[in-house]
Amino acid sequence: MRVLGVDPGLTRCGLGVVDGRPGRPPTMVAVGVVRTPADLDPARRLLQIEQGIEEWVAEHRPAAVAVERVFAQHNVQTVMGTAQAAGIAMLVAARHGLPVALHTPSEVKAAITGSGRAGKEQIGQMVTRILKLDAMPKPADAADALALAICHVWRGGGTSRLAEATGAAAAQQARQRAAYAAATGRVRGGRA
Amino acid sequence: MRVLGVDPGLTRCGLGVVDGRPGRPPTMVAVGVVRTPADLDPARRLLQIEQGIEEWVAEHRPAAVAVERVFAQHNVQTVMGTAQAAGIAMLVAARHGLPVALHTPSEVKAAITGSGRAGKEQIGQMVTRILKLDAMPKPADAADALALAICHVWRGGGTSRLAEATGAAAAQQARQRAAYAAATGRVRGGRA
Repeated sequence: MRVLGVDPGLTRCGLGVVDGRPGRPPTMVAVGVVRTPADLDPARRLLQIEQGIEEWVAEHRPAAVAVERVFAQHNVQTVMGTAQAAGIAMLVAARHGLPVALHTPSEVKAAITGSGRAGKEQIGQMVTRILKLDAMPKPADAADALALAICHVWRGGGTSRLAEATGAAAAQQARQRAAYAAATGRVRGGRA
Repeated sequence: MRVLGVDPGLTRCGLGVVDGRPGRPPTMVAVGVVRTPADLDPARRLLQIEQGIEEWVAEHRPAAVAVERVFAQHNVQTVMGTAQAAGIAMLVAARHGLPVALHTPSEVKAAITGSGRAGKEQIGQMVTRILKLDAMPKPADAADALALAICHVWRGGGTSRLAEATGAAAAQQARQRAAYAAATGRVRGGRA
């Protein structure tokens, strides 16, 4: 399964494409950011983000799109632009008939690092290790987009609610842990 | 100037088209809502909203689009969907090269009723009177979209920040009051 991860934002919209399937180490296909100038009209910034994501979908032909779920509670200054950029990513996916999954930041952090409270740096390091990259993807938005794509692959392409509803969450977590161990070459203490 | 007003929302996205210019009573061209089913995937709901707004732009060919500015502070449950629907309206406008203005709810209320704290019912009544309609547009989202379009016409097509920057706000308010009096046939107490 090829997944396009989108870390939404008006100034920097992170994009990352990953190939993989549950229980296997994923591989990176592409990573980057769509940047839009802060002095541009917000509507035109959204148009540039749409064009950027359209180009990525056309070039990499993902089977699914994973977008970070945006919450109203935090970061009030920029949250509206972030929500709108996320909406554009969802729109482009729907236009191409691609399934869209929304993952919360803590779901992504837990999937990638084992802790829902991991920091940006830790996410970047784990993404680098899991995808066997020579260097950490920069900026953090790019690494976060890859993390979203990896999270989605490891969750088996489902959303958290779906997984919970079918009782598959535990099995997915086990697969995640196995993939995590395989990808990082580490076995956690207590289960070695 | 022909203006498309958009009262954004996932469940009901109000659309209203008005012809007019500052200081004159505006006329209604069209009013309606794009509805999307609550049980549909959010990405597909956004796609339906995009298609609906595209159809309105193609049919009515507005010169500008006025969208309600969404704030993160209130109505947290639905605010993300509302922000995304607003983003879709901005995107469609930008795609057609149309200027986009964002007006806050209190700006619209003040322009239409003279009070920034007017209720839904009051907005609906004033829109009905200003546009000389036989009945109040329903649902409230449709009336609010017309109110946005009227507000934008009366502001002379500018945004509040632009108006403040050029010192034109006072002149616009005077024009608004004149248009308000002309449209409603009422002269307020104390200035009769």
